[in-house]
Amino acid sequence: MRKVAIVGIGHGKFGVRSDASLRELVFEAVKACLEDAGVTLDEVDSMVTGVACDEFSFGIQPSAQVHDYIGFYPKPNYRVEAACATGSVALRTGWMNIVSGLADLVLVVGVEKMTEVSTSVATEIMGRAGDAIWEYPFGTTFPGYYAMIANAHMAEYGTTEEQLAMVAVKNHYYGCLNPYAHMQKEVTLEKALTSFPVAYPLKLYDCSLITDGAAAVLLASEERARAISKKPVWMVGLGLATDTLRLGDRRSLTSLSAAREAARVAYKMAGIGPMDIDVATVHDCFTIAEIVAYEDLGFCEKGEGGKLIEARETYVGGRIPVNVDGGLKSKGHPLGATGVSMAIEITKQLRGEAGSRQVKDPEIGLTHNVGGSGQIALVHIFRRE
Amino acid sequence: MRKVAIVGIGHGKFGVRSDASLRELVFEAVKACLEDAGVTLDEVDSMVTGVACDEFSFGIQPSAQVHDYIGFYPKPNYRVEAACATGSVALRTGWMNIVSGLADLVLVVGVEKMTEVSTSVATEIMGRAGDAIWEYPFGTTFPGYYAMIANAHMAEYGTTEEQLAMVAVKNHYYGCLNPYAHMQKEVTLEKALTSFPVAYPLKLYDCSLITDGAAAVLLASEERARAISKKPVWMVGLGLATDTLRLGDRRSLTSLSAAREAARVAYKMAGIGPMDIDVATVHDCFTIAEIVAYEDLGFCEKGEGGKLIEARETYVGGRIPVNVDGGLKSKGHPLGATGVSMAIEITKQLRGEAGSRQVKDPEIGLTHNVGGSGQIALVHIFRRE
Repeated sequence: MRKVAIVGIGHGKFGVRSDASLRELVFEAVKACLEDAGVTLDEVDSMVTGVACDEFSFGIQPSAQVHDYIGFYPKPNYRVEAACATGSVALRTGWMNIVSGLADLVLVVGVEKMTEVSTSVATEIMGRAGDAIWEYPFGTTFPGYYAMIANAHMAEYGTTEEQLAMVAVKNHYYGCLNPYAHMQKEVTLEKALTSFPVAYPLKLYDCSLITDGAAAVLLASEERARAISKKPVWMVGLGLATDTLRLGDRRSLTSLSAAREAARVAYKMAGIGPMDIDVATVHDCFTIAEIVAYEDLGFCEKGEGGKLIEARETYVGGRIPVNVDGGLKSKGHPLGATGVSMAIEITKQLRGEAGSRQVKDPEIGLTHNVGGSGQIALVHIFRRE
Repeated sequence: MRKVAIVGIGHGKFGVRSDASLRELVFEAVKACLEDAGVTLDEVDSMVTGVACDEFSFGIQPSAQVHDYIGFYPKPNYRVEAACATGSVALRTGWMNIVSGLADLVLVVGVEKMTEVSTSVATEIMGRAGDAIWEYPFGTTFPGYYAMIANAHMAEYGTTEEQLAMVAVKNHYYGCLNPYAHMQKEVTLEKALTSFPVAYPLKLYDCSLITDGAAAVLLASEERARAISKKPVWMVGLGLATDTLRLGDRRSLTSLSAAREAARVAYKMAGIGPMDIDVATVHDCFTIAEIVAYEDLGFCEKGEGGKLIEARETYVGGRIPVNVDGGLKSKGHPLGATGVSMAIEITKQLRGEAGSRQVKDPEIGLTHNVGGSGQIALVHIFRRE
C-alpha cells in the first residue's frame, strides 16, 4: 500500500466571517497551505472539497464554487459530505486518491459558511442531520440529542455537571492560545456552571459554536512527500464506521458505537493501541461528547471520562492532551472544516510547531470526528518520522 | 493497480414515486442489485451514497438515512456529490475504495427524491448549481443555460431545431423499451417540434424530466469478481475534469471542455479511442447536450453532431448507439441516480441482457455524466471479458 503524508497545512481564521464568502474562505486556507508546503497550485493533481450542507450557503455543488474561485479547473475536484464529520471523509477520500494511484499530490479542503442564516435556522438545519422523520419533527435539535447522552452518562456513571464544565474551561483556555480560534476568551468553572441552560444538563458553555471557517491540507505520496517536506506527517491509520440514524435505536446512549468501531479499525491499521497516542483532537460538539470520546477511544475506562478531565490528564503535561487547540467548543465548528482543522492541529503538534500549546515531543497523534449524533465517526492516526 | 468490475446491478423504477421515500427507493435498488450479484449485504465491505441535493428531501446527511434503513451499519458509508454527475463520482469513489485496498466489495448507490417539492422549486434549486452569485439571481435556470449552448451551436454549425427534436424522438422511442424509464411514450418529430417553448430553441420535448429514482451497482476486486460473476464488467477507464462555474467564463459555448478532458483521460487510461466504443450513455439533460456529447467524446467531428443523429447513427444498428435506454430525456434524471443508472445500462449491454434494445455484441461501453452546466464531467469506460 502506498504511503500518504500531510506535507502542507493552511488554517483560516474561524469566527463570524461576514468579510468573506465560502469561496473566499477557501482561498485563504488554500493559499496558506500551499505556502506552508512550498508548492504551487499547478503542481497539485487533484482536490477534494468537504462541505456539510447546501442550505447554509445558498448554492448547490459548492465544490464548483471552490475550484472555480481558486482556479483549479480542469483538474479533478468533487464534494464529499458526512454532516459534522465531513472534513474527515474529505481526508479519507484524498488518501484514497493517492493510494489508488490516481494522484500524487491532493489538496483536501473543508469549509462551511454557517452565519449567513440566523442561529435558529442553523440549529434547525443541523437538527435534520438526526432522523428527519422520527426525531427532528418532534422538536429535537442537537443540544437535545447530546443532552440525552449527558443525562444517561450522569445517571449511569455519576458524571457531574462540574466535570462537563471542566471540559469547557480547558478548551476555552487553549482557544485563547490559538490565534485561529473563534472564541478567545477564558471561562471560569463558576461562569460555565451558571451560564444559561440550553437543554439540561447542557448550558451555554457546554455547547460548541456556529462558525464560519475553512481549512486545507496537502496530501502527498511517499516520493513526493520526501521531496517536498522535511517533516512529513504520515497517515498511518484510518477508521470509518456508521450507526443507526435514530438515537433511540442505539443499544447505549453513553457511548458512540461508530466511534468505538472506527477507533478499533484505525488502531489495528496503525498497529498501535490507545496508550500509544501522544496527542488527540476529539469531537467536542458538546462537553459531554469529549468525555464520551475519552472512553470510546480507550484513553480511560468506560465511565471514567469525567474523572480524566477532573484530574487534568487531558491538559498539556497530562497523560493524554486532548483538544489543546481549543476544540470545537472554543475554536469553533464550521462543519465541513472541522475534520481538516483537527488534522492540522495534529500536524502542528507532531512537527513541534504548536507554540505555547505544544505537547512535549509527541510522535503519534489522533483525530476523532463524529457526524450527526453518531451516525458516522472517523478516527485517523498520524505519525511523524 | 487492482482491477475493479461491476458484478451486480439494481435499477429501481424511475418516475413520480409518491409511493416511496428516499430510503425506500434505495432499498428497492439495493435489493435488486444484491439479488443480481447473488451476494448478501453481510458480504459487502463498504458503501458509497450519491445524493445531489439536501433540499429536495428535507434531511441533511442523506447517507445515514440509507445505511440505517438497509441495515448496513457499522460498515463504512458516506455521501459524495457533484450535482447531476453525483452518481459517477459515487462510482469513482467506490472504485478508489477497492483499488486503495480498503475494501473488496463495495455497494455504490445513487438516489434522488425530487418530486417532494414543486417543479418550480426544483427548477430553482437546480438553477443554483450554476453560479449562485452571478447567474442564477439574474433569472437563469438550467433550460436557460442549455438554451444558450443550443443557440451558439445553431449559429456556429447550422444545427437545426429538427436535429434537436430527433434526439427526443430517439430517446423516447427507446424509453418505451425500458421498463424502468419514467416516460413510456413515443413522440413524433412534429409533436416534439410543436411542443411549448421552454427557453428558445428548447421546447418541452427537448428537456429531461424531474424524477424520483435510485440505482445501485456492486463493485468487486478482481479476485472477488471472478468468484461472484460469470460476466464481470471491468471499469478500465476513469476520467474526471472540471471547468469554470460560470458559463460566461468559458472559451466556447459549443463544447463542454470538462467533458472533452474527462474523455481524453479515460481513453488514455483504457488505451483506446472513440472509435473503439460500441455503446454509450451520455448526459442528455437537454437534447442539445446529447449532440454536444457526440462531439466532445469524439464520436463525430466538431459541429457534426446534428448530422450524426439525422443519419440515425446513434440508434441500435448505427455506428455508435447512444442512450438506447431512453437517456435522461425519457428514462428520467433523478440527479444522484443518473450516473449509476448509466453504468447499469452499459453493464446490461455488455452482458448481452438489454433485451429489445440490445446492441449487437458490444465489447466496450462508455458513460458520460455532466454536473451542472459543465462545471464537472466524468467519463467511464467499461469492458467485458
